[in-house]
Amino acid sequence: MQTPSGTLEFDGQAYLDGRASDPAVLGWMEGTPPPPGKRVQFGVQPTLGFPQIRWSLCHMRELVPTVNVWRGDGGAREFPKALRTSDVEALRFQDMDGRARGWEESLHDTYTDGIVVLHRGRIVYERYLGILQPHLPHSCFSITKSYACTLAAALVHEGVLDETRTIPHWLPEMRGTAYGNATLRQVMDMQIGVKYSEAYADKSADIWAYSRAGSLLPRPAGYSGPGNFYEYLVTLQPEGAHGEAFAYKTVNTEVLCWVMKRATGVPFARMLSERLWSPLGCEQDAYITVDSIGVPMGGGGLSASLRDLARFGELMRRGGEWHGRQLLPQAVVDDVQRGSDPAKFAKAGYSLLAGYSYRSMWWVSHNELDAFEGRGIHGQRLYVAPGAEMVVARFGSHPVASSAANDPITLPQLLALGRMLKG
Amino acid sequence: MQTPSGTLEFDGQAYLDGRASDPAVLGWMEGTPPPPGKRVQFGVQPTLGFPQIRWSLCHMRELVPTVNVWRGDGGAREFPKALRTSDVEALRFQDMDGRARGWEESLHDTYTDGIVVLHRGRIVYERYLGILQPHLPHSCFSITKSYACTLAAALVHEGVLDETRTIPHWLPEMRGTAYGNATLRQVMDMQIGVKYSEAYADKSADIWAYSRAGSLLPRPAGYSGPGNFYEYLVTLQPEGAHGEAFAYKTVNTEVLCWVMKRATGVPFARMLSERLWSPLGCEQDAYITVDSIGVPMGGGGLSASLRDLARFGELMRRGGEWHGRQLLPQAVVDDVQRGSDPAKFAKAGYSLLAGYSYRSMWWVSHNELDAFEGRGIHGQRLYVAPGAEMVVARFGSHPVASSAANDPITLPQLLALGRMLKG
Repeated sequence: MQTPSGTLEFDGQAYLDGRASDPAVLGWMEGTPPPPGKRVQFGVQPTLGFPQIRWSLCHMRELVPTVNVWRGDGGAREFPKALRTSDVEALRFQDMDGRARGWEESLHDTYTDGIVVLHRGRIVYERYLGILQPHLPHSCFSITKSYACTLAAALVHEGVLDETRTIPHWLPEMRGTAYGNATLRQVMDMQIGVKYSEAYADKSADIWAYSRAGSLLPRPAGYSGPGNFYEYLVTLQPEGAHGEAFAYKTVNTEVLCWVMKRATGVPFARMLSERLWSPLGCEQDAYITVDSIGVPMGGGGLSASLRDLARFGELMRRGGEWHGRQLLPQAVVDDVQRGSDPAKFAKAGYSLLAGYSYRSMWWVSHNELDAFEGRGIHGQRLYVAPGAEMVVARFGSHPVASSAANDPITLPQLLALGRMLKG
Repeated sequence: MQTPSGTLEFDGQAYLDGRASDPAVLGWMEGTPPPPGKRVQFGVQPTLGFPQIRWSLCHMRELVPTVNVWRGDGGAREFPKALRTSDVEALRFQDMDGRARGWEESLHDTYTDGIVVLHRGRIVYERYLGILQPHLPHSCFSITKSYACTLAAALVHEGVLDETRTIPHWLPEMRGTAYGNATLRQVMDMQIGVKYSEAYADKSADIWAYSRAGSLLPRPAGYSGPGNFYEYLVTLQPEGAHGEAFAYKTVNTEVLCWVMKRATGVPFARMLSERLWSPLGCEQDAYITVDSIGVPMGGGGLSASLRDLARFGELMRRGGEWHGRQLLPQAVVDDVQRGSDPAKFAKAGYSLLAGYSYRSMWWVSHNELDAFEGRGIHGQRLYVAPGAEMVVARFGSHPVASSAANDPITLPQLLALGRMLKG
């Protein structure tokens, strides 16, 4: 691609490249006050527009209301370090377009804000770029889904939830919607026939109406649409059958979280705190964006520190066991790793994810590393590779929402990394 | 006063009493979703209205955007305990209206959410009521001012700020406003002649316009007023002379914080983290509400845990020294404790605060305990009593904003407590 120096091209459009869009270089929100051209303001500028998104994803709670995920009273349980910085940085691999790539370039070209690599539970590589710091929470976007559904799967294992029941068992409000005859398991695997579009590049996609309902996007003057997530969910109409194909739709996670809260009475933030943040010995509190009635955005609202994200991946790699305590049932982790039916996944048409399946809101590669992934828009990734005893947590602020924009570099990069660590 | 059972009367109006208004009893925000009558929603219900304020003050960040005050990487430094619960709870005293009071009743009748009492640096009493918990931040309201101005006084001591300079030295924008010829010290002691009313009971008082500018109150449709704190501050016009009388006006603290940020480049939240939260070994992160361009509300936006608030009081009681490290200059603490001119304070007409003065945004009692206080609306109090080697941190959610509504109980209560501990 012929693009001007300091830019990269995606879908025919040129963007400042990783170095040129560094938020520290651009000076977002610096100054007293920041000059108008350097402000990131909810309802004034598109806070998730590029390049200001490179600032926003480390500062979500300064833009919208949030609920805290408490790390608990205990101290942090720090990862041991066994750094292999030079080995990692010497890594070279071929991207999906056949181009040779070096490690450093691959970080910048995926607009990486931070990356930590664990091997056998030890930090072998850790790097922060832009304005991310080890203690700063960064948006996880849809990796939030993997947290939510893993907890849901644990509740199923414990008998608190029955995954064969249909949604109205817990939410009678959902009768007459697309979810009236959907089982909880179909929701957990996103095999739901619902009229709802998640095409981020399409300004009229339903994802934006959902975001406005949840107060994640500003509402136009005179807005009379749904006032919160639940009011939006009850409007969803069927389109096609359930259980036949994977179809990635964030609203499934909101329905799931609504079920979890209704069934247990425990708010999502408290469940994360009690079941994961506190017993994992997380280093920092996390937080979740909330709608106008305090409902956390289970489909994408979590912000966490990079190492704390890695802790969750490492817990999954260890089969749910954490220093002598089983925090998640081994059966739940095994089930995620087995994945679901790749044939149903294939119907969704992800050309870069050949052979994948989707299970309990994890993307299961079925590759040589047995890797499964939490994936969030704009470059968020939690890559758990039991076959290489490796976990990679990465935050990014890529100009393009869809993971398809960074997969051509990211997937070969992580595979090469796993192969190297496997030795 | 003849009021129905379960109510208390203030300024001729009856309110649910402390027990009847317990937010856990009333069930605010409980349910999935909470029923409309149990919701606390920014822009829909008055979130600081009573009795929903009893929920809101523990949940400010779920209502508005906030910035984090990081507790740092180190572990918490916990207070030793030397509980004297039964001694404290046996305390009886006479309130300012001449009525005999018991301890338990005094907690409920001041709508206390939590109180911790330190004597010689050890916790002798600790109690949580309503929905406050040890780890939950609660609004400090104007105790935020005492934090801000103590840091400002430290910057003056260090030579970073010159308190004899007038405000335009740092903020040329403030030429032509009330602050054009005001010195920093006059701002720090709130001896500013500025047309601005802080009468909370008056719906047209300037405090509400200030709050709307800072996004702490919803804006009416078509709002075209100031878009942030700074835009509001430059509209302030003179009214009377500076340096002649104490006049409590929150905008002074916003001007002060603007100066601190302009002069140092360090955001208030980071300064609090680096100079206090981290070296004090605070137990929890705190947070501050922010306006639409990320400016924290230095006049009242801080939420902190009760014990962390007590840590700040204890630091002041110890003359700024904290386990071998001087976190604040002794001279700054001594200067606060000496207070300023009670004659200038008397002009403000606080009938319940006879003999007080105001220095560096602390209320200095000049009483037998040499007590000085941070005071916030709706019952927030940090009472530092060197003469009794006592510090009391209290959070409340009183139906009436003005401290005058709880002072008739609080001041004799704390004095009696100090006398008992002094022995």
